[in-house]
Amino acid sequence: MSTVQVETPGGAYPIHVAAGRLDALAQSIPGDATAIAIVTNPTVAAHYAGRVEQALARTGKRVLRIELPDGEAHKDWRTLNLIFDSLLQNKLDRKAVLLALGGGVVGDICGFAAASYMRGIRFIQVPTTLLAQVDSSVGGKTAINHPLGKNMIGAFYQPLAVEIDTDVLATLPAREVSAGLAEVIKHGLIIDAEFFAWCERNAAALRALDPQAITYAIQRSCELKAQVVSQDERESGLRAILNFGHTFGHAIESGMGYGQWLHGEAVGCGMVQAAELSALTLGLPAESVERVRALVQAIGCPIQPPDLGTERWIDLMQVDKKTEGGQLRFVLLPEIGQARLQAAPLDDVRRALEKTVAPAAA
Amino acid sequence: MSTVQVETPGGAYPIHVAAGRLDALAQSIPGDATAIAIVTNPTVAAHYAGRVEQALARTGKRVLRIELPDGEAHKDWRTLNLIFDSLLQNKLDRKAVLLALGGGVVGDICGFAAASYMRGIRFIQVPTTLLAQVDSSVGGKTAINHPLGKNMIGAFYQPLAVEIDTDVLATLPAREVSAGLAEVIKHGLIIDAEFFAWCERNAAALRALDPQAITYAIQRSCELKAQVVSQDERESGLRAILNFGHTFGHAIESGMGYGQWLHGEAVGCGMVQAAELSALTLGLPAESVERVRALVQAIGCPIQPPDLGTERWIDLMQVDKKTEGGQLRFVLLPEIGQARLQAAPLDDVRRALEKTVAPAAA
Repeated sequence: MSTVQVETPGGAYPIHVAAGRLDALAQSIPGDATAIAIVTNPTVAAHYAGRVEQALARTGKRVLRIELPDGEAHKDWRTLNLIFDSLLQNKLDRKAVLLALGGGVVGDICGFAAASYMRGIRFIQVPTTLLAQVDSSVGGKTAINHPLGKNMIGAFYQPLAVEIDTDVLATLPAREVSAGLAEVIKHGLIIDAEFFAWCERNAAALRALDPQAITYAIQRSCELKAQVVSQDERESGLRAILNFGHTFGHAIESGMGYGQWLHGEAVGCGMVQAAELSALTLGLPAESVERVRALVQAIGCPIQPPDLGTERWIDLMQVDKKTEGGQLRFVLLPEIGQARLQAAPLDDVRRALEKTVAPAAA
Repeated sequence: MSTVQVETPGGAYPIHVAAGRLDALAQSIPGDATAIAIVTNPTVAAHYAGRVEQALARTGKRVLRIELPDGEAHKDWRTLNLIFDSLLQNKLDRKAVLLALGGGVVGDICGFAAASYMRGIRFIQVPTTLLAQVDSSVGGKTAINHPLGKNMIGAFYQPLAVEIDTDVLATLPAREVSAGLAEVIKHGLIIDAEFFAWCERNAAALRALDPQAITYAIQRSCELKAQVVSQDERESGLRAILNFGHTFGHAIESGMGYGQWLHGEAVGCGMVQAAELSALTLGLPAESVERVRALVQAIGCPIQPPDLGTERWIDLMQVDKKTEGGQLRFVLLPEIGQARLQAAPLDDVRRALEKTVAPAAA
């Protein structure tokens, strides 16, 4: 088992990465927990909830299961309230522990539920998608969507632990593998050019879920993300670079309606757009833009953004949390392996959109 | 102007108490704020929103007003979402500042909105009821209600400042003055026997809002509360004593339907019940119980709880956040001026209920 340690002012915790980790979950439950509520969805539950319940039975504690409707379209108040309803109906107290068993949606909602229930109870992340394993389960960002913007309502709230079982990827649809790999290569693009090059060489092995390749990719992604988060838990500066590709990506998700594109797909495509904008604003070499485009395509993500209309694109991007005083700010790359947050001239944004966006089908 | 300083791990901030403080609010707005949203309700807005907007105009910043429906019955998701809707429609960013202008309901909802909007933005408490001035605006507890329990969803989130204008009490209904005074005497009961005795001597002056008496009562209440909160921001121990009277009080509010009893009225009555329970469980002298009852009555709060039926009473109290592993815990007084959190035998709880609860009208 490999362990990556995350240290933030809001809490220090381990990320454990190992095959078969689901069966060892009892180890992560604190002795004084009064109950455990597994928050999951029907798809994940069908594969793993029974096994997790069996593993947790060893604690001798009461174990509940709360199943949420599946998908980004349900990452909202209504679904969050299902958790609160169940916790209160079952009279769970402040010493109860939530366990998020699922992908990014489950982890984000469950984390925000933990942050808010009785003003904060403990929780554990057990991510079952590649995207959640390499990205959303690490760093304590929790949130739900609002009709006017993604992840607009939430909290910075750290889990007790992140438990990653690499075996669970076997049941993941190929499209979700590609979406997860988008965040993996993002970590290379923004901080670690060598890791990006490693991803280029191993793109096929990663898509095929070669055990050695995927385990290394998860561990390295978690390490890189943990480095950033440890320096800036609440996104007052550095942490923003983790949002590379996300300003464009969020506009795709929101403009197409949440759930049409997978988050990782939108980020993958958004990284191509952000690379184009980096070329215009910071002079990122054209060959680097092409490397980004080629790798995003090689891992199986779309590289052509939808035609939302330029003004609607810009309007959607203005809701982004990086916006300040109405000015659009982006994470841009001066070169591969380096990133910075900065305002981009509106003209450059328009040109980057024109260069990438597919014209609407006639 | 008197200033009380609150120091917590989540933030240090001043409480300013002065007549006419509303007109000086521009002083509290940070220079880098991109916009200010005043969160209030129509009742308070009719009296003070114009004046506050005028005071804030001096900052030269954009000022929005968000009016929420009035009353505890609206302290829910729906109302919270009105704030998010408005903040997003108006594209307020992470550097915007919320200003809670109103009583405890406005302060609690606005505080939770600030804690959750884009995972946390800054806010200022401008409490306009006595209860909010002496209690809910201080200490960083924010929350909304759930149909199954009061304040069940929220966050510990500290404001930038608490700005108390004693002049605003002039427009407060007498019933709300009484409700606020319940929390004032609570602070004496749990930590400061001398202040409790001072309240006994000044009960009439306090009800009449004598400027000198009420200013001292507010300042002393804030000091006492700040002492407790500074030692235990997240209610892991000591802070629980601030909930004296609240386990019974919350059951009244929830059992009768939120909004029927004012929170302070329920707490006032709940303190009489908690004093009775203290006599049974900790041997609080009968004469002390009578002093509590007499002062609660003297400040104009009800002393006779509603007959919800003993089992429903107990059921409602079990949802309380102090419950642990299903055991009822109460803040009890060994003597006036001292408090501790402890489990009470169910028999004592039943007897305390029998001794205080009014039989239902035939």
